[in-house]
Amino acid sequence: MKIALVGGTGNIGRGLALRWALKHEVLIGSRSEEKARACVLEYSKHLDAARLIGCNNVDAVSLADVVVLCVPFEYITTTLESVKHVIENKCVISPVVPMRRLSDRVEYAPPEEGSAALLIRKLLPESASLAATFHTVPARSLTKTEGEKVYDVVVCGEDRAKKIAFELAIDANLRPFDGGPLENSPQVESLTPLLINLGIYNNLKNVGIKFLYNDTDR
Amino acid sequence: MKIALVGGTGNIGRGLALRWALKHEVLIGSRSEEKARACVLEYSKHLDAARLIGCNNVDAVSLADVVVLCVPFEYITTTLESVKHVIENKCVISPVVPMRRLSDRVEYAPPEEGSAALLIRKLLPESASLAATFHTVPARSLTKTEGEKVYDVVVCGEDRAKKIAFELAIDANLRPFDGGPLENSPQVESLTPLLINLGIYNNLKNVGIKFLYNDTDR
Repeated sequence: MKIALVGGTGNIGRGLALRWALKHEVLIGSRSEEKARACVLEYSKHLDAARLIGCNNVDAVSLADVVVLCVPFEYITTTLESVKHVIENKCVISPVVPMRRLSDRVEYAPPEEGSAALLIRKLLPESASLAATFHTVPARSLTKTEGEKVYDVVVCGEDRAKKIAFELAIDANLRPFDGGPLENSPQVESLTPLLINLGIYNNLKNVGIKFLYNDTDR
Repeated sequence: MKIALVGGTGNIGRGLALRWALKHEVLIGSRSEEKARACVLEYSKHLDAARLIGCNNVDAVSLADVVVLCVPFEYITTTLESVKHVIENKCVISPVVPMRRLSDRVEYAPPEEGSAALLIRKLLPESASLAATFHTVPARSLTKTEGEKVYDVVVCGEDRAKKIAFELAIDANLRPFDGGPLENSPQVESLTPLLINLGIYNNLKNVGIKFLYNDTDR
């Protein structure tokens, strides 16, 4: 698969690139093509035979089958504006979480649409398919590709993008769970501030989730 | 410790009673003393040397050091009204979650105070100390006392009650995490509908949580 990491030079972009680059072709997008290329050089040091390409966000989206929005919430509107002419029919994945930092904790701060994913849905052309996931895996843990725990992620969204998101989660050594339609995205996005707060209150780093359940009781 | 399970004849009461009865004195409260006594007879079949007492809710609260509110959200106001003359200075623990059942999933449905715990805080005398926890462990899993996974719970609340809730969580073979002050309770209570929905969408029973983190990165 050809995967564009829009804003792929940040923490989560780096993690996903390292986890996907051996199996997929990964396009690291940035507003600055130069920065994207520098990142590719750096990421490649950690990989043996990776297919990583650095380019500007528009080229990345244009060449890709799947677009992952690795940009902070505050840049979502301008970023989507800049790529909307090349994003028709694409599968789009959002790990975006709108948060506000308070003195002693972080707070979920969704836009009036109800969540980042619901705002993104409004900004995307109808022909694009959207799923939201990867909110429950710490970016820093993603960058570790060996001996790492298998984190769980919840995937909300539209069928076509959800199916791709499930596959890509498994390829990133994550365990995906169906979280239902996009309307459930506020519940899922708000897990990120909860996990960050648990880290603060309990003095832990990189807090993620594993769901427990009883198969035998089905 | 003497623990009153107000409304202790339901699912979560049964689970907590079975997990605490070997170490603590557990008072099973009910609006009907007869029903409470019948429950004690039944619970005792599963225990060797338990200290379980069945009584009405008022006697249970009156005799206890800690009061656990095992009643559905819709009965919280009337239940607290009925015991408020004996609950001064007690530690109170709320596992209560206000939810609405929709056709295909459940929805968090907090009162205008923001959460069940924040409503309960308003109804309790100032001298009582309140913590909210046990939202992330399925009631049915609590009733299994052997060979069961160790589920994680998040504890929000006031210091005195939080300390007791931590101890009682450990005594129930659960792993407690500090979730901060009572103001964070909406985030924690809303984990229950999320877990129930994951059960529905993924065809799983008794979904609970385990938090992952890296000690070594501290």
